[in-house]
Amino acid sequence: MAETLIKVDLNQSPYDNENIHNRWHSDIPMATWVNPGEDFILETYDWTGGFIKNNDSADDVRDIDLSIVHFLTGPVGVHGAEPGDLLVVELLDIGAKDESMWGFNGFFSKKNGGGFLTEHFPEAQKSIWDINGLFTSSRHVPGVRYAGLIHPGLIGCLPDPKLLAEWNKRETGLIATEPDRVPPLANAPFAPTAHMGKMKGAARDKAAAEGARTVPPREHGGNCDIKDLSRGSKIFFPVYVKGAGLSVGDLHFSQGDGEITFCGAIEMAGWVHMKVSVLKGGMATYGIKNPIFKPSPITPHYNDYLIFEGISVDEQGKQYYLDVNVAYRQACLNAIEYMTKFGYSRAQAYSILGTAPVQGHISGVVDIPNSCATLWLPTQIFDFDINPNAAGPAVQKFKSMGIPLSHDLK
Amino acid sequence: MAETLIKVDLNQSPYDNENIHNRWHSDIPMATWVNPGEDFILETYDWTGGFIKNNDSADDVRDIDLSIVHFLTGPVGVHGAEPGDLLVVELLDIGAKDESMWGFNGFFSKKNGGGFLTEHFPEAQKSIWDINGLFTSSRHVPGVRYAGLIHPGLIGCLPDPKLLAEWNKRETGLIATEPDRVPPLANAPFAPTAHMGKMKGAARDKAAAEGARTVPPREHGGNCDIKDLSRGSKIFFPVYVKGAGLSVGDLHFSQGDGEITFCGAIEMAGWVHMKVSVLKGGMATYGIKNPIFKPSPITPHYNDYLIFEGISVDEQGKQYYLDVNVAYRQACLNAIEYMTKFGYSRAQAYSILGTAPVQGHISGVVDIPNSCATLWLPTQIFDFDINPNAAGPAVQKFKSMGIPLSHDLK
Amino acid sequence: MAETLIKVDLNQSPYDNENIHNRWHSDIPMATWVNPGEDFILETYDWTGGFIKNNDSADDVRDIDLSIVHFLTGPVGVHGAEPGDLLVVELLDIGAKDESMWGFNGFFSKKNGGGFLTEHFPEAQKSIWDINGLFTSSRHVPGVRYAGLIHPGLIGCLPDPKLLAEWNKRETGLIATEPDRVPPLANAPFAPTAHMGKMKGAARDKAAAEGARTVPPREHGGNCDIKDLSRGSKIFFPVYVKGAGLSVGDLHFSQGDGEITFCGAIEMAGWVHMKVSVLKGGMATYGIKNPIFKPSPITPHYNDYLIFEGISVDEQGKQYYLDVNVAYRQACLNAIEYMTKFGYSRAQAYSILGTAPVQGHISGVVDIPNSCATLWLPTQIFDFDINPNAAGPAVQKFKSMGIPLSHDLK
Amino acid sequence: MAETLIKVDLNQSPYDNENIHNRWHSDIPMATWVNPGEDFILETYDWTGGFIKNNDSADDVRDIDLSIVHFLTGPVGVHGAEPGDLLVVELLDIGAKDESMWGFNGFFSKKNGGGFLTEHFPEAQKSIWDINGLFTSSRHVPGVRYAGLIHPGLIGCLPDPKLLAEWNKRETGLIATEPDRVPPLANAPFAPTAHMGKMKGAARDKAAAEGARTVPPREHGGNCDIKDLSRGSKIFFPVYVKGAGLSVGDLHFSQGDGEITFCGAIEMAGWVHMKVSVLKGGMATYGIKNPIFKPSPITPHYNDYLIFEGISVDEQGKQYYLDVNVAYRQACLNAIEYMTKFGYSRAQAYSILGTAPVQGHISGVVDIPNSCATLWLPTQIFDFDINPNAAGPAVQKFKSMGIPLSHDLK
Repeated sequence: MAETLIKVDLNQSPYDNENIHNRWHSDIPMATWVNPGEDFILETYDWTGGFIKNNDSADDVRDIDLSIVHFLTGPVGVHGAEPGDLLVVELLDIGAKDESMWGFNGFFSKKNGGGFLTEHFPEAQKSIWDINGLFTSSRHVPGVRYAGLIHPGLIGCLPDPKLLAEWNKRETGLIATEPDRVPPLANAPFAPTAHMGKMKGAARDKAAAEGARTVPPREHGGNCDIKDLSRGSKIFFPVYVKGAGLSVGDLHFSQGDGEITFCGAIEMAGWVHMKVSVLKGGMATYGIKNPIFKPSPITPHYNDYLIFEGISVDEQGKQYYLDVNVAYRQACLNAIEYMTKFGYSRAQAYSILGTAPVQGHISGVVDIPNSCATLWLPTQIFDFDINPNAAGPAVQKFKSMGIPLSHDLK
Repeated sequence: MAETLIKVDLNQSPYDNENIHNRWHSDIPMATWVNPGEDFILETYDWTGGFIKNNDSADDVRDIDLSIVHFLTGPVGVHGAEPGDLLVVELLDIGAKDESMWGFNGFFSKKNGGGFLTEHFPEAQKSIWDINGLFTSSRHVPGVRYAGLIHPGLIGCLPDPKLLAEWNKRETGLIATEPDRVPPLANAPFAPTAHMGKMKGAARDKAAAEGARTVPPREHGGNCDIKDLSRGSKIFFPVYVKGAGLSVGDLHFSQGDGEITFCGAIEMAGWVHMKVSVLKGGMATYGIKNPIFKPSPITPHYNDYLIFEGISVDEQGKQYYLDVNVAYRQACLNAIEYMTKFGYSRAQAYSILGTAPVQGHISGVVDIPNSCATLWLPTQIFDFDINPNAAGPAVQKFKSMGIPLSHDLK
Repeated sequence: MAETLIKVDLNQSPYDNENIHNRWHSDIPMATWVNPGEDFILETYDWTGGFIKNNDSADDVRDIDLSIVHFLTGPVGVHGAEPGDLLVVELLDIGAKDESMWGFNGFFSKKNGGGFLTEHFPEAQKSIWDINGLFTSSRHVPGVRYAGLIHPGLIGCLPDPKLLAEWNKRETGLIATEPDRVPPLANAPFAPTAHMGKMKGAARDKAAAEGARTVPPREHGGNCDIKDLSRGSKIFFPVYVKGAGLSVGDLHFSQGDGEITFCGAIEMAGWVHMKVSVLKGGMATYGIKNPIFKPSPITPHYNDYLIFEGISVDEQGKQYYLDVNVAYRQACLNAIEYMTKFGYSRAQAYSILGTAPVQGHISGVVDIPNSCATLWLPTQIFDFDINPNAAGPAVQKFKSMGIPLSHDLK
Repeated sequence: MAETLIKVDLNQSPYDNENIHNRWHSDIPMATWVNPGEDFILETYDWTGGFIKNNDSADDVRDIDLSIVHFLTGPVGVHGAEPGDLLVVELLDIGAKDESMWGFNGFFSKKNGGGFLTEHFPEAQKSIWDINGLFTSSRHVPGVRYAGLIHPGLIGCLPDPKLLAEWNKRETGLIATEPDRVPPLANAPFAPTAHMGKMKGAARDKAAAEGARTVPPREHGGNCDIKDLSRGSKIFFPVYVKGAGLSVGDLHFSQGDGEITFCGAIEMAGWVHMKVSVLKGGMATYGIKNPIFKPSPITPHYNDYLIFEGISVDEQGKQYYLDVNVAYRQACLNAIEYMTKFGYSRAQAYSILGTAPVQGHISGVVDIPNSCATLWLPTQIFDFDINPNAAGPAVQKFKSMGIPLSHDLK
């Protein structure tokens, strides 16, 4: 078995583990070093560092302080990696920790980050998903079982000071256009809850005040939440600092395109077995700005889909110009409406779209004024026939508590 | 062989064929009627009605009057279909016409409609794609050959007067927000070039003045340009008028997600073999607003991809808020840049993204402020190895004229 | 459209078409010549030359004189091809003839060739399969519809005299071991029904007496009946004579591994669009004895299977030593038995195994004394759920005449 | 994490573990009991109980006493299961033991069991395969890496006395036809090396003398060596005794159809996570004689193959009658010959056919006198291009010791 270079203790606060960090900054010291060609294992917290529990209440999803996320494992220094190189990362395998064979999916309250359909699901809800070998199912969402498409929601290398400055400049600029928005347009650096790994003292405080938040995907990859960056895939990351500084976290057992529930996928603590190598000068050689990757040869091969279309006219009939977000939202709402005909609550249907390996395709972006997006629902995850037919939908008599909801506090 | 209910003569103007129309209007008479359970064949013009020619000049792409599109075959009335039903359409097969075994792909001038990357490709260009059995290749874009994912870009049923009124209202409303924009935000009804099928006289003139343009996808389907609605798929269309009134056209031999070049796919004249049936009251039973469909059991099964990421920060570094369009544009530009390292011109690479069965996924839409989109480039369409490796890209010595370009006229 | 180099008239006897032949002989003159790099179309008869009709009687299957088969189109000479080369054949597309959109499947009487399960189905039966675009279904076998996996059952190049002599020697040698067997162990040359293409006079008579029968697959390919050699595939054939001499026929719309019904697949008349090129000296360079090929990128992608096992102990409990034939026969019989639980007759189930794209895998060949073979039945071809479950099989109330049977004549 | 009901210590002899057995007998007591609906984990030895070591000598493969195999874990009793039921087993996951991340592949000497190509590889050879997450590669076979298709080679329920008697009768009958053959036609019961689980005393001795050897697959499943019975699949086993008595062992990380090297796949010690339920009376309801199964939704999806044909004429030109074994052997030999052109030794090529997920199809079994079999070699497992092309094969300069061979002892 490959060596586990960084361990995490789920009973310990991630703030007490100096090989964890929750901000991006070029000064964060390497937690450990490896040589090109080596393979090794890193353990990770779930993205909230254990705040969300395996129970039937959504209070934790309602109450979480999101400035603490995401707890990342690393950075790992790679000998010989230099700015301009590509760091080649093979995800040899990924799994949940033995003592934690479950994950969670949640909808945040609109007051606390919301989600893609926050206008429709404005309050906190949570579902728990049990992991049984290759599969997952939930006591809160009956009638479905999926094979896992296990992937890290967040992975990438440290930015250099210039790139970090650019991130902070453009994002604080956006916030400034509507500073009081709820949820906000972006998250500015925020020192109080920053965890800067091994950094200490004044240097740590300075970096904590500058460190980029981990929420958005950026040039280095980061929180891409790409479901297909799954175990078995091979990723080519831009390198900005000496040693690259690879960090990873936010593991997902399964997720749909868009991670539309925001909290978001089936979130879990676990481990990543990976191998690294360096492609010298690869950024210029191949003209790489953002990471590129090759998907895995082992993924669930669901191939029977029911596909929902959406166009860029919103729920109120308002016309947008080639807006894929509006179109995809309509496709999602259409799928939710459809699933309710079979006995699901709207929240359960939403949860399925967030957790199952649904595909979201950008189907048309040029036919003014309407974009067209498609939501691909795999029919083979259901244990009943969800296709339309002349007899009408077979309404399921689910025995389920439904998805716990916690009302906003006054 | 099933009966060909509507024929087209490629040497005749589509305006002279009364079973063709290029606007959506509830009053357009059925061109022909069929019974549920019947299968039949409809021939179609290419979307421009034959304006674009198989030659090495892009003048026609530059000069075309786009108010003439799309020339659709139909409407076909289906006995027994009534408003509220779902019309089930099986695309049994689709092909090019024997006398026209080729298709075209073009970039419109920014002055004449543009395209997804019109800022980068502001002038008219055209590539011709030969069809050889199941495959296509181009004298203008060497090094690639694809198996066809043949589909109609445009298919759907007639709107009723209420729906038509809603379309016109919301789209003219959008135009009014920036009436002088080039290209325009949407296309208003335009009588001079309208072709209203069998309609004649004053009724025809009234309908021509009201008829919705065919460019955008809408609730009824229409110009969805969904590559996966390919031969072998089964579609459930909302019915708004007695008899349904199914029309089809704008056939594509192959296309990528987004149809990013706008002109757009490999456009061809051809025929559609289809079978129709009716699912009574299906709109309410299944909660259907937009069409839903089951994809085909026979499509090219390319499964080795190189995947490019893009985020919602544009080419100038400007930050957008969760904008999938910006993210997908970046993913496309990243792929184009990459392909140039192997010897392609930027226009050739753009053409590949428009014509090959690339996938465009909405990978993340919640991680403020950046959306993440991915562009999946199938590696098996190239006759050389396009993967990154330590040796660097093998630059191809293509013997090709490149993609013809016609400068804007002063 | 590519040029049709050889046409067939289904109303004409194949014996009257000099571009057809039904024996393999090195002296058969080329029917036509092409250059490497050219693509062209050849039309073909069904393998019986039109003897089997689209009706509800199996008399023709019972009465056919099998010494007439297979009627092949060709040989096509390829300029520059020489012994030792590999002839590269791309099957660009294959289809049924417009005037003949149907195919047949039959079980021969044990007295007339039999089939893989002839002890269980000793008399002549026939089912007719309609072709509707990409799909086929049968009035004799309800409840199933398949997307076609269209392929030539028989394709290959002319043998040289030495190879021909070897074939005749080893096969007549086998016959001599049990000369009176019914059905026979092999088919010896048989002049009376030979069709030698353009040959005439004494030369023709000599060749007719020597010409190898077309039934078995041999080193050159020939009657391989490999379902995956379908349209879109690319085959590398050994070349034995100057010009190669490629012939093709016995088109199948769909077939299962093993072609177990012998008459066999869904047999049809049609056309093949192909492209040829030459790989000089390829036989030695790549160590090729039998053809090799790359399968098509477009085939039906059924991926949900119910898999039946069989071992090399026969129906009577007799033990065989590592005999895959016995094991596969058991797997087939197990699948037939299973399907009868859903309402099929045994003959209908047998017909499904012969016509649907079932897979037959050699699963174990070393665990003495039992081989293990598996029969993969695609569940997505059925319009009801054929999986086992706690509720038991849903017996279908098929309205079908069943499969016509014609008793042996006394 | 599910409970591990049976553990194995790789440092302990399997004979000292009473939850292990190496013969099939109806009297073997259940090692443990579970309820329907439960999931649990069983650990297993490799099939030889640890005899084969991770080193560079094939002495152990040469010297092993094969009467000791296979060491199975179980039997597991399932409450409520009775004769005539089907035991439904879901293989939730399978893996190697943490302390043993490797597997072996070997060719037995012809004197000690041989293999499918024993005439060509008559002496003992061994290759070691390292397991790295989802993938495997070997220091003895360079240039290839596969994603694992992890499966139990051997799994099934206990026979009842009548079935056991039938097995022994038919197999000893076969042996009697050629009792001195090397290797033998079958393996008779053999008490000296029998391990009968918890049995003791005279009852144990009697059962040891009667217990069926584990080598062949039989009606109950057993040593089927079906590569597609992999983790994620769902199997329906016939039940013959009260409690069913499910045993499992002989885990493989990867294997090709046929397990042609006999020792055979990539053999490993490991664990199986499974879930059981009972389908009452299922054998009669569904007409089940041998197990049936649904394959896994997660398997390596290699889809680019190079396919080799073989016919039933052997290496010496001898003609066989519709013998699939001979045909598949030719296809294998053709593939081996081809691979040698790229720099592999014949033994390395043979090892690839035994360990990679190659497919072996029964392509034709009715075209007298030649069967046709096809060997599907996945091209995506090679790190170089193994397709034929005009430039000829790129001979690899492998730096490898080759596959260790140990000569027969005199």
